[in-house]
Amino acid sequence: MREKITIVKVGGKIVEDEESLQHLLTDFSAIAGNKILVHGGGRSATKLAEKLGIESKMVNGRRITDAETLKVVTMVYAGLVNKNIVAKLQAKYVNALGLTGADMNIILSDKRPVKDIDYGFVGDVRFVNAEALIEILKQNVVPVMSSITHDGAGNLLNTNADTIAGEVAKSLSYDYDVTLIYCFEKKGVLKDENDDNSVIPKIDKELFKQYVEEGIINGGMIPKLENAFQALESGVRTVIITEASEICSGKGTYIIK
Amino acid sequence: MREKITIVKVGGKIVEDEESLQHLLTDFSAIAGNKILVHGGGRSATKLAEKLGIESKMVNGRRITDAETLKVVTMVYAGLVNKNIVAKLQAKYVNALGLTGADMNIILSDKRPVKDIDYGFVGDVRFVNAEALIEILKQNVVPVMSSITHDGAGNLLNTNADTIAGEVAKSLSYDYDVTLIYCFEKKGVLKDENDDNSVIPKIDKELFKQYVEEGIINGGMIPKLENAFQALESGVRTVIITEASEICSGKGTYIIK
Repeated sequence: MREKITIVKVGGKIVEDEESLQHLLTDFSAIAGNKILVHGGGRSATKLAEKLGIESKMVNGRRITDAETLKVVTMVYAGLVNKNIVAKLQAKYVNALGLTGADMNIILSDKRPVKDIDYGFVGDVRFVNAEALIEILKQNVVPVMSSITHDGAGNLLNTNADTIAGEVAKSLSYDYDVTLIYCFEKKGVLKDENDDNSVIPKIDKELFKQYVEEGIINGGMIPKLENAFQALESGVRTVIITEASEICSGKGTYIIK
Repeated sequence: MREKITIVKVGGKIVEDEESLQHLLTDFSAIAGNKILVHGGGRSATKLAEKLGIESKMVNGRRITDAETLKVVTMVYAGLVNKNIVAKLQAKYVNALGLTGADMNIILSDKRPVKDIDYGFVGDVRFVNAEALIEILKQNVVPVMSSITHDGAGNLLNTNADTIAGEVAKSLSYDYDVTLIYCFEKKGVLKDENDDNSVIPKIDKELFKQYVEEGIINGGMIPKLENAFQALESGVRTVIITEASEICSGKGTYIIK
């Protein structure tokens, strides 16, 4: 029987609030067996950029990453947020190891080619070094991955944290039964964005297509669900979108093939 | 026969200049066998603190680390500097892994008690997890250590990079023949600070004491040499203080028992 692994992706809103982060890390530490935490950094990077007089530009939920912004996100995501999470997990007896894609060459990415938009120093994942991750996991070490990758030529690149979670999940699905949990400030994917209890319990591709056409699913949820479907098609066993406080309960929206 | 390991400590001035950093990393990548790089961050943290309106206070070469300064050094040392070094080493086919003391619980430290001076969030090393470092080294992974540690209770602490290099060297001296190289902007410990060629080839404890009394050795060099002597007494084989460009040549000042 294959071992299980749980990959939890948390967004910026959770990690930058001390109380919600502590809750999340307590729940995460209670997950049995192999696990990985993937985090963004969100607004704390925007706030630091503002203080430094660097303008934050967003297009379709993606940050435009010029050279100065790359420095800011590296400092905030790979430094401040990542290492604070690692220290807090260590205090909960979780043997955490903070990683970017450059560390142990875990995630190699390609600078996104300029078409209509120049995203700057943004990396699209080329390769996840599952072998290195498995070596880490075998030592009962828990990877904590920030959304910074590298191009193998000495340059760091900013990569969407949802994408990283999805790509890591896919790469490990050959060796593990993978459960991928996207945490979120709502209880799941909502049918009515004004009704927190309108959680859609299950979505398959057909229903997703219908809901996008009807405008029920929109914005940043579209790439999140696209990542989820891609992950399922690549062998990930279970994908769940849920509230950060529910990562242990099994509640939320299940994405199914 | 025991394996060898080379531990190189580089200071802020080298890591923040693109050209000198590239030279250093090229030389470092040429060192055969087990190796570890320990780095500070120096003036780049001071510069960022200035931009953010945070005053940098130094006492006896030690930074006073208030809560805001701790955030800055975590961002700069563990984020920007560390991850750029890791990416650049990966480009040179060195399988680098960036670490703080919190990662894999590598270095546990105690917040320095307040006596005459409140150093703030500064950590004195309590314990180096040599076992975890050895596991990493056995995988042919090269640790790149920033000068941030943790207290095991969820808090990061700022720790002198020279001290980290010395403590790591000591902890590995039970299992390896350790050479510890402190890099520096001069060719070694100078007898005359105005004459770059007045390198003292060898210093033992007696000569050190004499030179301190005569004022030949002063300032930040005193704790650096004290660390070196402590390392030798704890089993480190060789300690060298040299120019960053000479880490492969064997030139510089040798600290001897």
